[in-house]
Parts: sequence; C-alpha cells; structure tokens
Amino acid sequence: MPVNLKPPVAAQLLPVPGVALGIARAGIRKANRRDLLLIRLDEGAAVAGVFTQNRFCAAPVIVCREHLEGTGIRALVVNTGIANAGTGAPGMQAARDTCAAAARLLGCAPQQVLPFSTGVIMEPLPVERLVAGLPACVADLRESNWDAAAEAIMTTDTLPKAVSRKVSLGGTAVTITGIAKGAGMIRPNMATMLGFVATDASVAQPVLEQLVREAADASFNCITVDGDTSTNDSFMLIASGRAGNAPIADVASEGYAALKEAVTAVAAELAQAIVRDGEGATKFITVAVQGGRDIAECKAVGYAIGHSPLVKTAFFASDPNLGRILAAIGNAGIADLDVARLKLWLDEVLVAENGGPAASYREGEGARVMKQEEITVRIDLARGDAQATVWTCDFSYDYVKINADYRS
Amino acid sequence: MPVNLKPPVAAQLLPVPGVALGIARAGIRKANRRDLLLIRLDEGAAVAGVFTQNRFCAAPVIVCREHLEGTGIRALVVNTGIANAGTGAPGMQAARDTCAAAARLLGCAPQQVLPFSTGVIMEPLPVERLVAGLPACVADLRESNWDAAAEAIMTTDTLPKAVSRKVSLGGTAVTITGIAKGAGMIRPNMATMLGFVATDASVAQPVLEQLVREAADASFNCITVDGDTSTNDSFMLIASGRAGNAPIADVASEGYAALKEAVTAVAAELAQAIVRDGEGATKFITVAVQGGRDIAECKAVGYAIGHSPLVKTAFFASDPNLGRILAAIGNAGIADLDVARLKLWLDEVLVAENGGPAASYREGEGARVMKQEEITVRIDLARGDAQATVWTCDFSYDYVKINADYRS
Repeated sequence: MPVNLKPPVAAQLLPVPGVALGIARAGIRKANRRDLLLIRLDEGAAVAGVFTQNRFCAAPVIVCREHLEGTGIRALVVNTGIANAGTGAPGMQAARDTCAAAARLLGCAPQQVLPFSTGVIMEPLPVERLVAGLPACVADLRESNWDAAAEAIMTTDTLPKAVSRKVSLGGTAVTITGIAKGAGMIRPNMATMLGFVATDASVAQPVLEQLVREAADASFNCITVDGDTSTNDSFMLIASGRAGNAPIADVASEGYAALKEAVTAVAAELAQAIVRDGEGATKFITVAVQGGRDIAECKAVGYAIGHSPLVKTAFFASDPNLGRILAAIGNAGIADLDVARLKLWLDEVLVAENGGPAASYREGEGARVMKQEEITVRIDLARGDAQATVWTCDFSYDYVKINADYRS
Repeated sequence: MPVNLKPPVAAQLLPVPGVALGIARAGIRKANRRDLLLIRLDEGAAVAGVFTQNRFCAAPVIVCREHLEGTGIRALVVNTGIANAGTGAPGMQAARDTCAAAARLLGCAPQQVLPFSTGVIMEPLPVERLVAGLPACVADLRESNWDAAAEAIMTTDTLPKAVSRKVSLGGTAVTITGIAKGAGMIRPNMATMLGFVATDASVAQPVLEQLVREAADASFNCITVDGDTSTNDSFMLIASGRAGNAPIADVASEGYAALKEAVTAVAAELAQAIVRDGEGATKFITVAVQGGRDIAECKAVGYAIGHSPLVKTAFFASDPNLGRILAAIGNAGIADLDVARLKLWLDEVLVAENGGPAASYREGEGARVMKQEEITVRIDLARGDAQATVWTCDFSYDYVKINADYRS
C-alpha cells in the first residue's frame, strides 16, 4: 500500500545515450521472475558510487570498491533474491565469478565490471544460475529498458521506482534517468539499498565523485523506514559523456550547480519513493528540523523521530499522542538542548512551545492533521541556523507481517 | 502475554522495616484504578537515585534531582496515568504542589518529598485530584503493602513486578524488596521507567549513591523493548538503616560487595520482568556479547541487535533468518570490526564464523532454537576481554496494536 506513489510510465523514462540495459529471469531464488539486470556502458563513461557503512558489507560491495579504484567501468550486474552478504570467502568468489562471466560476454576485463546483489543475507549466491542468465541479458540490451530494469531490482517493493529529468548545461540538453529499490532495512548511511542514476552529461571523474556524495547526502541519506542499515546499500552515478556538453571539470562551475540540482532532484524523488513504498507504510512523513547548530544535530533529531516505534505507531493510528515526539526529540543526544526554547508544529499547527503544549493548541487540530496521508513535522530548535530534512513512514501491522513472512 | 513471568506472591514480598506504603484510587486519568502510591520513610533513611538522560525529562524528575541535593528524604509520591512530562511551567508547579501536599500530611518539609509520574506525555497533571487522594494513601500506610504498590504503578504492564531477597551482612540479616513498572518506551539510559528498591541495611549516603549506579548499570541499563528512552525513567534505592548491621561506609568492604550482589540481583530480576512483560512480547531474548575491547562496544552490539525491527520480527516469526543479526552487528558502529573473526551462536548452536555461515550449521538447528520462548544470542567479537549482556524481547503485531491504541 504505497503512499501516493504510482508505477513509472515507460514512455516518460528517457533513454540515456551510451547506457544500455538488459534483463533476464535467472531463477536466482524464485523461478519466473526478472531477477538479473546487466547495464552496459559505452567506452568513456565515468562512474562513481557510495556504499553502505555496515561492517558486514556484502561481497559485491567489497568488489565494487576495488574495481572503482581503476577506471574504464563497462558494465554493472545486479541480481535480486540473494544479497551475497555474510557469505565469507565463497561469497567473494561468487562476486568475482560474476564479473568474469560478464567480462567474457562483453569483451572487457573483469575489473571493468561492478557487481551488485540484494535479497536474503547469509545464504549462498547460486552464481552458476546467475552466469547462465547473463547471455539472455546481453541479448536484451536496449537503451529504452529502464522500466524493466526498475522492476528487475525489486524485492519486497510493491512498485518499481524510476525517475527522469532533462536539464540544460550551457545550452546542451542533458538527460538524467535513475532507478532504485528498497522497502525495508532502510536507513542508508551512505546510499540506499540499490540506486542507479545515469546521465549523458560529460563529467570529469573527481567531479562525479563529489557529485555522487552530495546527491546522496540530500536524498538517500535523508530517509529511514526501520532504522536498519543494509549490508548492500549502493548508489551509483554514471556519466556517459554522450550529450556533447563542455565537460564539467570544476565543482565551482555553473554546469556543476545545474547538474547537481537535477541529479539531486532525481535521487531525492527515488529516495522518497522508497519511503512511500516502505514496508507496511500508510503515511509519508516529512520531518523538517531547523534552528540547529549544525546539520548533524538537525539530522539526529529527524532520525530520533523517524526511528521511534512509538511515534511511528501513533502516526499509523492517526492518534495525536504528540508527547511521544517530544520524548523522541529529548532522546536525540543533544546534551545541552534547551527544551523550553524549541517549537513543534504538525503541518501549520503549533503544537508545543515553552516546554509544553502551546496555549493555542487544540487536540482537534492535531487529530485533523494526523489523519492525512502526508504530514510534515517541523521543529525549530532555536539554537542556530542549520536545517535538515528526514523522510520516513509510519509503522503498521503490515511491517510486522511482511518481516515475519519475508523468507517464506 | 508476558514471557515466563508470574505475578508476585504477596506473602513472599518481605516488608522492609522503616518503609511503609499506602495506595489510593485518585482518578488521575481513569476512574476506579489504584493510581497513587505514597512511600513513607522513617527518619534516618538514606535515598539515592538515577534518572533518565532524556532532555525532555519530566517535571517530577527535575524536582527529584533538586530535592536529592538535600538530605532527610521522608516520602516518595508516585502517580500513574499522566507522566507530567512536556508540560512546561504548569507541570513544574504541579510537581511542587504534590510535594507540598504530602509534606503537610506527614509533617515534614516539601524538600523532603520526591515526586514521580508515569503515563501520557504532554497532558496536564490533574494535581488537585492527586492531592485529594493523598489522605487515603496516608490512611493505608503499611509495611506489608508492596504487592498493592507494585500494582498501583502499572500502566501498560499486564502484571505487577516485585522481588524480595534476604542477605546476611556480617551476621545481620538484611531485607531487600523492590518494585518496578514498564512495558513500552523502554530503553533506560540511567534507569527504568520507575523502579523502587528498599533495604533495611544501614548504608552511608555516598556509598548508596555508588550502589544505585552500579546496580542500574547491571540491570535496568541492560534492557530494551523498543529503543525509546522514557522522559520519566527513575530508579530509586532506599536504605532505612533499621536492620542493625554495622553501617556500610566503604565501597571496598565485604558488606558492600554482599549488598551490591543482592541489590543487583533484585534490580536485574525486576529489569528482566519488564522485558518479559514488554509490549506484545512473545519471546525473551538474552544477547550476550563477549570478546569486546570494552563494555561500551559490547553493549553497542547488544543494543544494535535488540533494537533492530528486522531481527525482532524474525524472532516473533521463529524464522532463523539470522543474516539479519549479522547486519545488525555490522551496524553497531565499531569502525574497525573484523567480521571474519567474530562468531555467532544461537543457544549452543554455532551459526556464523569466518564472515559467513558456519560449516557445521544446519538451518533445522537454528529453527529449533528460534521456536523457544527463551533464546540466548551469543557473539564473540574476538578482539578483547570485555563482555556485556542486553535483555530484550521480540516485536509482534500486538506491539503495534498496543501503541496504536494506547490513549483510547
């Protein structure tokens, strides 16, 4: 039951010249579902990524980091069903075998292939099935395949997630198209479960590396469903360079600013789509924190609210039991927070000030906002100029149901 | 549906000489339930406490801290129904009025009274009803009232929680009796929602202050139900001094060690009772972490597991989806953790080693342990000699139900 989220319309997903996608049914974990994606890049594309901070990171994440130390990435291989995390040395071998198989088919080196996996942790990846499925991916390679690709990377997602934008860079039209998946184990620390955004803009490698971090910080690093950081989080940004713009080689340039705005918009829409499709979600909550000393403490307050099971169940119940939000703010770890100065709003309704309920607050007003599908919780910490936003969802019976049943 | 928890047997709760308890129905939030407790101490009792680290701490917590700077505490007043937290200046006045009213009835100064509240946050405390109920508490004062007191401090608890022990201090028999409440918003940072332990031992004030911290660290500070630290957490230790033992004035003494062991045992049993009665709990989980560099990192791993909604729903489902435990360990914030060295057991079953599933592990064995009502998750971090234990419960439909319905 995603919140105000529709499946992408295939015709509105813009191909990115230089980036082809092929999908297959490899039977990784279940039969007859699209579970294998190959993304082939033309020569000259730049690729940068950010990855999970989970210490039990997946074998493919380790291999990706290694291969990104080189240049000339030509392909990305993504499987769903098995995460290939918590799989020890055999898992590392499976990730390397995946790269080798794709390299043979595409005529490049294994180090030019990046592997990605998502699904159940601590179960072995049936790499022989993955390898057997790759030729079908190659046969299916098309630049117009973004919708099928978005579907192929789903696990507990109820809808595929894909977004396109166009932006002008010094008079040259540039396309940005991205896909993402994720519905649970969502509290990205560097990126989301899996997100892939491609543009045909020409961008120098070090600039692209800064861009992917900035875009992740303003999108995937602002969401939480359940506070659990995945072992496989990966957010990749691809610049094929085929648009013909003057290459962006300076982060202080106008071109960088324009591209950053567009890439961040795509990434933020994908990140929000993950929350809208959060496991069991019935509401989409924006937690906007202002007046902090720095961004870190604003995010800490946002996440304290976004992670509190008591706050999330109150949203599910549409119950304006808003003292739970105050308790969560108090738990955000700001040692010298003056609770008498902060203010709390629900949409436009001032709920709390001076350490207690606002004189103007009426519970009926709170109840009215709590019934909405989209709610903004706004907090002014009144101690500085920093601000940050966290997007999250509520916590329902269906979250428990989905996660009690996930493997069955 | 508490896990292996029975109500206390009144006859087994030992009176503590010098400590009398009186209960009343004050109608604080709901009519006709015991919701007000007065604990009267004879002159000469020592009292020490630890309190929540939540910045939005309740008005009574602020007043308790003030009054504990003085000496000669003669009474504690506890109400349920309304937490008197997030209530601003009127809440502070209500807490002070509570102390003044009890002081008038008992013939002491308001500064000799400690107030405690638990219940809904950000709603005003009807202090006039509380004050009107106090004379009935005074009329009910008896040293044998511990069972009724345990019942009077319940909120979403399904069972009262009370424990007694006897210990010999240098040949003198000493009694320890305690009560606690709490079932949700349980992740004590200094203490639990409300815990009161009394002994008739004679203990010097600075020694008692160390004892309450050490006992809390080994009991209430080891539990979590939902990761939400309450605004009202308070754990109080009372020493009436009536047993006639040689006063304990040195934390290096044998008497201190013996009393600490007994007080900690009482506090730990109360803390575990809170988890056994955790909102919606169907399983009691002990997370024992060893081989850490320090206690802090062992606790961090224990809490990362104890707070993960994915781990907790897997326990609820009896599903040995144990990769979720590895993911939680990886999220504990230990930057240099070597996942290839750690080991994970479920009871006596070795589940993971060398970064992946143990060669000897069979899913049937994991499934067998997961079906139990009591499960020990053991982790050896293999990087030091420190250890710590965290007690938690699973996460069920009923947690959502209880917290979606709490105010209704």
